[in-house]
Amino acid sequence: MPLTGAMFIGSERRIGQGPVLEPVDPRTGASLHPGYGSGSATDVEDACQLADLAAPELRATPPERRAAFLERVAERVEQLGGELVERAVAESGLPEGRISGEVGRTTGQLRLFAAEIRDGGWAGVRIDPALPDRSPQPRPDLRQRQLAVGPVAVFGASNFPLAFSVAGGDTAAALAAGCPVVVKGHEAHLGTCELVGSAVAAAVRECGMPEGTFSLLYGSGPEVGQALVADPRIQAVGFTGSRAGGTALMRTAAARPRPIPVHAEMSSVNPVFLLPGALRDRATEIAEGFVGSLTLGAGQFCTNPGLLAAVRGPALTEFLDVAAARLAEAAGQTMLTRGIHAAYERSVAEIASVEGVREVASGSPGEDGNAGVARLFTVDAEVFLRRPELQEEAFGAAATVVVCEDAEQLARVAGALDGQLTVTVQHGSGDRDTAAALLPVLETRAGRLLFNGWPTGVEVGHAMVHGGPYPATSDGRTTSVGTLAIERFLRPVCYQSMPADLLPPALADDNPLGLPRRVDGTRETVRA
Amino acid sequence: MPLTGAMFIGSERRIGQGPVLEPVDPRTGASLHPGYGSGSATDVEDACQLADLAAPELRATPPERRAAFLERVAERVEQLGGELVERAVAESGLPEGRISGEVGRTTGQLRLFAAEIRDGGWAGVRIDPALPDRSPQPRPDLRQRQLAVGPVAVFGASNFPLAFSVAGGDTAAALAAGCPVVVKGHEAHLGTCELVGSAVAAAVRECGMPEGTFSLLYGSGPEVGQALVADPRIQAVGFTGSRAGGTALMRTAAARPRPIPVHAEMSSVNPVFLLPGALRDRATEIAEGFVGSLTLGAGQFCTNPGLLAAVRGPALTEFLDVAAARLAEAAGQTMLTRGIHAAYERSVAEIASVEGVREVASGSPGEDGNAGVARLFTVDAEVFLRRPELQEEAFGAAATVVVCEDAEQLARVAGALDGQLTVTVQHGSGDRDTAAALLPVLETRAGRLLFNGWPTGVEVGHAMVHGGPYPATSDGRTTSVGTLAIERFLRPVCYQSMPADLLPPALADDNPLGLPRRVDGTRETVRA
Repeated sequence: MPLTGAMFIGSERRIGQGPVLEPVDPRTGASLHPGYGSGSATDVEDACQLADLAAPELRATPPERRAAFLERVAERVEQLGGELVERAVAESGLPEGRISGEVGRTTGQLRLFAAEIRDGGWAGVRIDPALPDRSPQPRPDLRQRQLAVGPVAVFGASNFPLAFSVAGGDTAAALAAGCPVVVKGHEAHLGTCELVGSAVAAAVRECGMPEGTFSLLYGSGPEVGQALVADPRIQAVGFTGSRAGGTALMRTAAARPRPIPVHAEMSSVNPVFLLPGALRDRATEIAEGFVGSLTLGAGQFCTNPGLLAAVRGPALTEFLDVAAARLAEAAGQTMLTRGIHAAYERSVAEIASVEGVREVASGSPGEDGNAGVARLFTVDAEVFLRRPELQEEAFGAAATVVVCEDAEQLARVAGALDGQLTVTVQHGSGDRDTAAALLPVLETRAGRLLFNGWPTGVEVGHAMVHGGPYPATSDGRTTSVGTLAIERFLRPVCYQSMPADLLPPALADDNPLGLPRRVDGTRETVRA
Repeated sequence: MPLTGAMFIGSERRIGQGPVLEPVDPRTGASLHPGYGSGSATDVEDACQLADLAAPELRATPPERRAAFLERVAERVEQLGGELVERAVAESGLPEGRISGEVGRTTGQLRLFAAEIRDGGWAGVRIDPALPDRSPQPRPDLRQRQLAVGPVAVFGASNFPLAFSVAGGDTAAALAAGCPVVVKGHEAHLGTCELVGSAVAAAVRECGMPEGTFSLLYGSGPEVGQALVADPRIQAVGFTGSRAGGTALMRTAAARPRPIPVHAEMSSVNPVFLLPGALRDRATEIAEGFVGSLTLGAGQFCTNPGLLAAVRGPALTEFLDVAAARLAEAAGQTMLTRGIHAAYERSVAEIASVEGVREVASGSPGEDGNAGVARLFTVDAEVFLRRPELQEEAFGAAATVVVCEDAEQLARVAGALDGQLTVTVQHGSGDRDTAAALLPVLETRAGRLLFNGWPTGVEVGHAMVHGGPYPATSDGRTTSVGTLAIERFLRPVCYQSMPADLLPPALADDNPLGLPRRVDGTRETVRA
């Protein structure tokens, strides 16, 4: 498909008249064609207007139609084939295998949400039938369901040009809920955005969805992004990116005449607790697993393990020796953009400049000037507890090991943690009680707790939580990965004494959609 | 029980050393004893510290223990008997029958949440079992549950001294979720607060709940209230009150180093659409029902019908004539406080001052100087659509009828509405299509849609939604009445590859708590 650089304003293709953004191959620094003209305030308004017009129809589409639509999007993305992989590799510098895998993850995610729409539990149907003879007052007929909130603005991430981008998790969840989506494409991979945008737009057309179901804009965060979040027709925001970017959107959303929720996934250092028994049992294995997780994809994962904590001793020394050796062998990998590489170098320099921080190892240089060199530091817990900046995310393959004097200090480190996407516990012989004592603190600090694993690699399923307390996200009550994410874009509505000929199918007595329901508080066991 | 004016800081009774707040009988203006010394920053910190200490234990209590605790609170409130009713009547000016009913509603609500805890659906258990042989990558064991967010600050409402106060809906929902609660008592009914606080504190003691499960502070919103919301240990806020109060707390919560969600129920004019057939069929009946709902409790309900819309014609004239006659007969009722009465008079004067607004009727004066006199206005839709201030809530028995030229203008009025707690449709012969055409707009504007009823009188059940888009509430994704409210105070956590001997009972394979679960996406049908 020839790339044109045009936005998708509903079914219209439109070249933005603002500053032209040029995607760059991070491996070579070469510009990639075409350029992408930034959208204007009018473009934002037009996309939002179409989304607003589409919202009532999309909200009311039968679940089966929305499921079929998501499946069609998946098919259309697959049909982009090698062209999509090639473009995403060129724009991200990520290896072809990784990108191919991400295409599969993205289409799998769309199909999982199609299945979730059919499941119907998300509709949250509750019926409290009328009790006309109740005294002192009769009870009216009350029926509750979850309804799409309306147009959603989606901001993709630099590090997942497919799975957290134009047709990624937020888009899939919002469309599944019945919300139109206006995406602002990430500047680092605009060609990939256009290709995937064409797939979504084709599916909208082929499935007869309302025109404003999907739009894709290009432009800068401070201009197009902020205008999008400020638009009164937008009802919710999904964002994956930096803490600065996410908090800027949070402020804009809160300052609107009618504030709206922002679901921003921002920053996490994903602490790993290496308990004493685990280090005694398998220091080498853990060190190797750690370096593998740390350096995967140049460390450019939201769940990258950037902080470790352990008690001083020979087993920890062994762990550090092996980790340092493995890290030194790790060749630097191309980072997503020059800007991300420069930010990584600044973050690493800041960590290194803290008095008491020691560099234990440094990876070997990469093949190009944009390669991020892995780094491993240690710091005593006493220093760590005094220096909150050591909890800030260095986006890339850098980690700091916090060396504690004893289990009590390890618990203090746990208690001092900011909100995280994940916390991992490496446990072994005799660690059960130590782990059990840490758990009540750790489960207040993260959306996901892992045991004897590594946080990179986020399963897309029903039980996953990719979220966590601030600053991991703006709102720890949801997830951006997995089927529970559909709840971000729904709100409950109660219908009181609604006449049968007005009731939506989801709430009709005979349950034509076969939805799971609670009737008078009791779960119905039979499904249609 | 002798009132002492002392706060409850966990199990400690402490007299606040700040300015003394004196409850006043709104009927007479007489001060009621004792005075209530305002808490200090230290008092706020001590209560929050105790709550924070209690949080891990409370979060982990078996559901049955929390259910029994809520039932014990209900019993203890009932045991306050006539003393509670007498004090609440004196502090609120509300009739004894209303207060007695509200005691029943409050205890019923506590017991409903006890039943909801036992139901267990709120725990949101999802298990995706490990798939060790899956290719290309195995799936780890993933288990998700909903976990209490931690200490919650609760701000009661002036107009429900029991059901939305110390042991009201927010407190019941938060305790049910497993969150410690710090209440700031409403200044208008501090004696009622102290009595109910003693009931909760006794139940905490008798049920062996952790000390910090419950605290009750006195003081002003700008000082004690803001300090409470700013305290880093508080994880969520429940508030019912004015828009100014709610938005002030929203700002404080958003400005914290770690922002937290605020669930503020604020302001709503609860529009009623009088469709043509309904007015033709039963203008008189509707007018009588309307005036009854408008003047109930001096109009001091969040769901008071303050705005009506109808098409001009003889049937509307008949409605207005009957409504005006009934309203003129309605004697003014004592309002909750002098401040609320004065604010009502200001709001009414502001409505009357808008050019094009006509006063149709005024109620008769009440027995005391604090009585709110009912008011009914009309305004042409053309004016209404130009004057957004006519959508602002006048807290009290005042309503404005928006007179439309035709169905198209009625639809434009619907489209111009702010977020509401409720929207009501009065429909009759031949109105089906008009109602159906309005619904897609109306259901985006409110948490509850009523048909041929009146919005006052909120059923406490499973299907109720007492919420709605801003400015009805700060966040339309939840409810402050009904069992769904428990979700406000929960967040999902995923446990990956957790060893069986660390798994909490809620997530154990053999499901010892008998919770409803989704396993690999499928709802289990059998409960233990």
